[in-house]
Amino acid sequence: MIKVGIVGGTGYTGVELLRILSTHPEVELTAITSRKEDGLPVADMYPSLRGKVGIAFSSPDKARLTDCDVVFFATPHGVAMAQAPELLAAGVKVIDLAADFRLQDVAQFEKWYGIPHTCQEVLKEAVYGLPELNRDAIKTARVIGNPGCYPTTMQLGFAPLLKAGVIDAGSLIADCKSGVSGAGRKAEIGILFSESSDTFKAYGVSGHRHTPETTEQLQRLTAEPVELLFTPHLVPMIRGMHSTLYAKLKTDISNEALQALFEDAYKDEEFVDVMPFGSHPETRSTRASNMLRLALHRPGNGKTLVILVVQDNLVKGASGQAVQCMNLMFGLAENTGLQHVPVMP
Amino acid sequence: MIKVGIVGGTGYTGVELLRILSTHPEVELTAITSRKEDGLPVADMYPSLRGKVGIAFSSPDKARLTDCDVVFFATPHGVAMAQAPELLAAGVKVIDLAADFRLQDVAQFEKWYGIPHTCQEVLKEAVYGLPELNRDAIKTARVIGNPGCYPTTMQLGFAPLLKAGVIDAGSLIADCKSGVSGAGRKAEIGILFSESSDTFKAYGVSGHRHTPETTEQLQRLTAEPVELLFTPHLVPMIRGMHSTLYAKLKTDISNEALQALFEDAYKDEEFVDVMPFGSHPETRSTRASNMLRLALHRPGNGKTLVILVVQDNLVKGASGQAVQCMNLMFGLAENTGLQHVPVMP
Amino acid sequence: MIKVGIVGGTGYTGVELLRILSTHPEVELTAITSRKEDGLPVADMYPSLRGKVGIAFSSPDKARLTDCDVVFFATPHGVAMAQAPELLAAGVKVIDLAADFRLQDVAQFEKWYGIPHTCQEVLKEAVYGLPELNRDAIKTARVIGNPGCYPTTMQLGFAPLLKAGVIDAGSLIADCKSGVSGAGRKAEIGILFSESSDTFKAYGVSGHRHTPETTEQLQRLTAEPVELLFTPHLVPMIRGMHSTLYAKLKTDISNEALQALFEDAYKDEEFVDVMPFGSHPETRSTRASNMLRLALHRPGNGKTLVILVVQDNLVKGASGQAVQCMNLMFGLAENTGLQHVPVMP
Amino acid sequence: MIKVGIVGGTGYTGVELLRILSTHPEVELTAITSRKEDGLPVADMYPSLRGKVGIAFSSPDKARLTDCDVVFFATPHGVAMAQAPELLAAGVKVIDLAADFRLQDVAQFEKWYGIPHTCQEVLKEAVYGLPELNRDAIKTARVIGNPGCYPTTMQLGFAPLLKAGVIDAGSLIADCKSGVSGAGRKAEIGILFSESSDTFKAYGVSGHRHTPETTEQLQRLTAEPVELLFTPHLVPMIRGMHSTLYAKLKTDISNEALQALFEDAYKDEEFVDVMPFGSHPETRSTRASNMLRLALHRPGNGKTLVILVVQDNLVKGASGQAVQCMNLMFGLAENTGLQHVPVMP
Repeated sequence: MIKVGIVGGTGYTGVELLRILSTHPEVELTAITSRKEDGLPVADMYPSLRGKVGIAFSSPDKARLTDCDVVFFATPHGVAMAQAPELLAAGVKVIDLAADFRLQDVAQFEKWYGIPHTCQEVLKEAVYGLPELNRDAIKTARVIGNPGCYPTTMQLGFAPLLKAGVIDAGSLIADCKSGVSGAGRKAEIGILFSESSDTFKAYGVSGHRHTPETTEQLQRLTAEPVELLFTPHLVPMIRGMHSTLYAKLKTDISNEALQALFEDAYKDEEFVDVMPFGSHPETRSTRASNMLRLALHRPGNGKTLVILVVQDNLVKGASGQAVQCMNLMFGLAENTGLQHVPVMP
Repeated sequence: MIKVGIVGGTGYTGVELLRILSTHPEVELTAITSRKEDGLPVADMYPSLRGKVGIAFSSPDKARLTDCDVVFFATPHGVAMAQAPELLAAGVKVIDLAADFRLQDVAQFEKWYGIPHTCQEVLKEAVYGLPELNRDAIKTARVIGNPGCYPTTMQLGFAPLLKAGVIDAGSLIADCKSGVSGAGRKAEIGILFSESSDTFKAYGVSGHRHTPETTEQLQRLTAEPVELLFTPHLVPMIRGMHSTLYAKLKTDISNEALQALFEDAYKDEEFVDVMPFGSHPETRSTRASNMLRLALHRPGNGKTLVILVVQDNLVKGASGQAVQCMNLMFGLAENTGLQHVPVMP
Repeated sequence: MIKVGIVGGTGYTGVELLRILSTHPEVELTAITSRKEDGLPVADMYPSLRGKVGIAFSSPDKARLTDCDVVFFATPHGVAMAQAPELLAAGVKVIDLAADFRLQDVAQFEKWYGIPHTCQEVLKEAVYGLPELNRDAIKTARVIGNPGCYPTTMQLGFAPLLKAGVIDAGSLIADCKSGVSGAGRKAEIGILFSESSDTFKAYGVSGHRHTPETTEQLQRLTAEPVELLFTPHLVPMIRGMHSTLYAKLKTDISNEALQALFEDAYKDEEFVDVMPFGSHPETRSTRASNMLRLALHRPGNGKTLVILVVQDNLVKGASGQAVQCMNLMFGLAENTGLQHVPVMP
Repeated sequence: MIKVGIVGGTGYTGVELLRILSTHPEVELTAITSRKEDGLPVADMYPSLRGKVGIAFSSPDKARLTDCDVVFFATPHGVAMAQAPELLAAGVKVIDLAADFRLQDVAQFEKWYGIPHTCQEVLKEAVYGLPELNRDAIKTARVIGNPGCYPTTMQLGFAPLLKAGVIDAGSLIADCKSGVSGAGRKAEIGILFSESSDTFKAYGVSGHRHTPETTEQLQRLTAEPVELLFTPHLVPMIRGMHSTLYAKLKTDISNEALQALFEDAYKDEEFVDVMPFGSHPETRSTRASNMLRLALHRPGNGKTLVILVVQDNLVKGASGQAVQCMNLMFGLAENTGLQHVPVMP
């Protein structure tokens, strides 16, 4: 059994880790930290876990995280880099669901997150945790920077095209829509029910942290300079993410060949579902599961390809993906504990 | 492996059966019928099942249901009673999620459902499928009338009190609220998104089919005549049911004793969670799971007890309960395939 | 033109006052105070008011509220009683949308609101602002305690029955459901979108502030001791309130006579709509309007009468009712500025 | 008073016309037709209109539409063109909210709507009813083709840029999102609450009727060939539309100059609100009002301009715009009866 610790288990990615890990056959939940909730049984905060998770929150000093095999950080940005060195020194693997180990470009990190990066030694060895594009490195990693939710959809949607060199890397557009849980479990006016239901808006249009992360990763797939325009929007739904990607084709290529490109790229991937050409995937078809689904469109048979990508932002976009990485790091079957059937309706 | 057939798999209780049974370790999905969708892969209608359910709908004549060990009817009222005799004759067990085998009082059935009961021989041996109150009979049953969603909450909420004789059976009130999926997957104006979101209403207040069903069952628990006033409401949410039950205490009994009554009644029940006295269970704490949670309140320490009961109407209120019955009928552990952790948020 | 000031215009009842008053033909919006937002144009906080409301928030010291004819308090409990004496002394009328002037029983106020009542002299002359039951007193009042949202529905639903003496005043039950905006515009976890959408729960079941307020008012209508059991619930919708009221009939009375009782009681009331016997009013049929609708049911022709009452909690349940009171206090037609057609869908 | 008839008043644009017209000071609602609902008081179908609209539906043969001054068609495509000639001959003006008189290119109409155009004589004189771009022609028109909801946002968002010649007309992208009411009040599975809440999807990505309509109109503003890629999505909200428009700048132009272009274009428009550069308009800021709001963004100060446009799809996107046209056609102030303050929250 893998002994697992979670730092910061009171947010949505934390409780989602608990939902997944509590039925993972190879995991023993060992510790979950919260300074504020020390001693509170997890199931008292989250009644959905009554009878499923027996442990209580403990303050970081008591939590004995160094006894774990792996520690997940479901914390605000900046926490993981403060604690990673000690854990690594004790032989504990680290999976950070925040941004501390996502961006290799430290200047970009500091610009977008507004804090200095205090752990660049560890950052150097950190592996970007997107298994479909980075599987081998993840298997041997000690530290994972788990991808952002939006970047996961953008990368898996653009990757086969960039690798094949059939689109103009310099004019990518990603018009993305996220459920409200993506904003986290924070007491903020803007994400109150009465403020964010029955309405729709864009946010961060002039610039968003997920642009440099995605650009850095996409750039690994092509020699051409990548230019990405990313527009996030907030959807009045709890979970779910829908990315509508636009790419200019620069070669003469048939729809069948484009479809084959994707089917080939993901033919062995359990968690990426290439739907038939012209499909319209719905976010709910992935709800509470680790699936990402995508489909291609070519309106008017023109030069612009539209790729529709959906996932559950809390699973494949966060906690499920983190567990997928853990499985790889510990030599388990990649889908262990991740075979939830999406909940519909 | 139990060979399972489903009649009428295109509605919400049908697709929920598929979600549950597709990961049930002792079940082999053998046939699913739909006259209209003959030949259509189930996953084409429900993309959430892509990669999880491989079979296609078949028309009833081709489906060879008599080769199954058990057949679930997720159909409109009246279908199961037409087909049950043939299946039973072939040694197939029957679980009806509609009302054909719920009411032993045929006159009541015909009054409330507006069709003649054409299968009274089978009805006589049919067992009401509420395991917590009827476990032994279910184990040996050939035919199950699976309880209605509302009746499940009302019975499990009132039962310990009626059995103990501490409340007035003649003045029960159940003010119940259901998510919209309870109305089924039918093309009707009243359950359109634009008609039923951001609003709230009661329906069927002057009389509802679930009253006679619940009364008949509750009457088995007490010699006093049961009088139940049941008021259903429609909540703008997909899944979930919340019943607020009011009962007049007729004896002098402490809150501790009342709480003990419930804890004792359900101490061995995996799917009934008695929360601490004074709790406010939320429907989402049971979402997509077979759990039912309840809590007691006694406002102003007065004579009226309030019991709050929540469940997922499609799971414990329908398909999960049906699988729970199946497990009992086939000698499996009762929780086999039913250990989903509720999805929160 | 009536010069109007608003104290605390940043919450939902405040912005709703602005929506209504900005098109009220006899009102001049003179001042709106907010210590925190001093100088900020109201329309910058609420873009829905761009082009409709030109004034800016000002800090209380600059606001010159004593120049107004009337001041609305859309503030937390306790603010109005601190400022009312000075305003009254300056000849300004006061309408408090919080609880400071609702309860004549000071001990009850202090028990339920947890603060001492510091303004009992003013409380004595304060008038409870429910026009349908208290019109004459409102016309001549200097100070109004505007009713709570739930109490408005409970009083208008029970009043004709209590006045006529046909129900048992000692066993009233009110099972009430409110949209989330009733909880106000506060940064709290429990009313986040991801916490309160797609779920349903009761709250405050063991005791709620609106019980003593309602009981005190209902007691004015009958010599029998009133006992009210009130159970509030939270509905995943923005606006709207639905109260399901249960009353035991103590006399032999026909449904026609009951219906006539209500139709007669409200025949001159523009804002109370008695629907046909057996109707199911929906909250959305009152959305964004000052209408309250109700309908009677008598399940099984038994002894319990069910009264269904709906309103928009922010309009008839708060700001619209406050403007209705203002109209009466200033000798205007009661419906001035309140003739919005409900927004449907 | 203008005598108004409505054909097809049972859908959402019909009931929205009723909401607006019932308080329009210069309008007398004379007739509303529905073959199916002949004799039914409108307020029986739509309780929100109780006390506001007194007339009943009448079958078309009884409705005496030729006595009206203007008739609105809130009907499926094809109805208006069948009835327009007779009405025009009788001196009645016609405003069609469907597509019969939107597209001057008959071949395009027949391709996208799948029916022959049987009224091309009338089509020739029909005026496209977008006041901000077509005011003078509307004033003297006898027949109006009222714009589609999406096309309104796309045209008002792109127009100032195309007119000024600062963007590449050949690579326009419109990623648009609509509330579910845009799909109409039809009994269809796909727009059930349980199918379309808590989820998000695109639809019609490979081709949609609103593309040719928008292209035809935009082409009037520029000599360059217009190429528009339009991607519609369904948002789990009742009302509201958000269009995210992408345009390539082809000249060197400052953000200030771009902002000035829009402010200048719409400086006299009561129903178009140009928000400060970099704003994020929310659909709810226009709810139940005739306002359209927009804001500009230029991510990374690059070559792509992003224009965010919001409106209420049933008001500025349909019925409000139709009334705006009517006001112009009858020489009234353009904003008569259209000064609703948006409903927030």
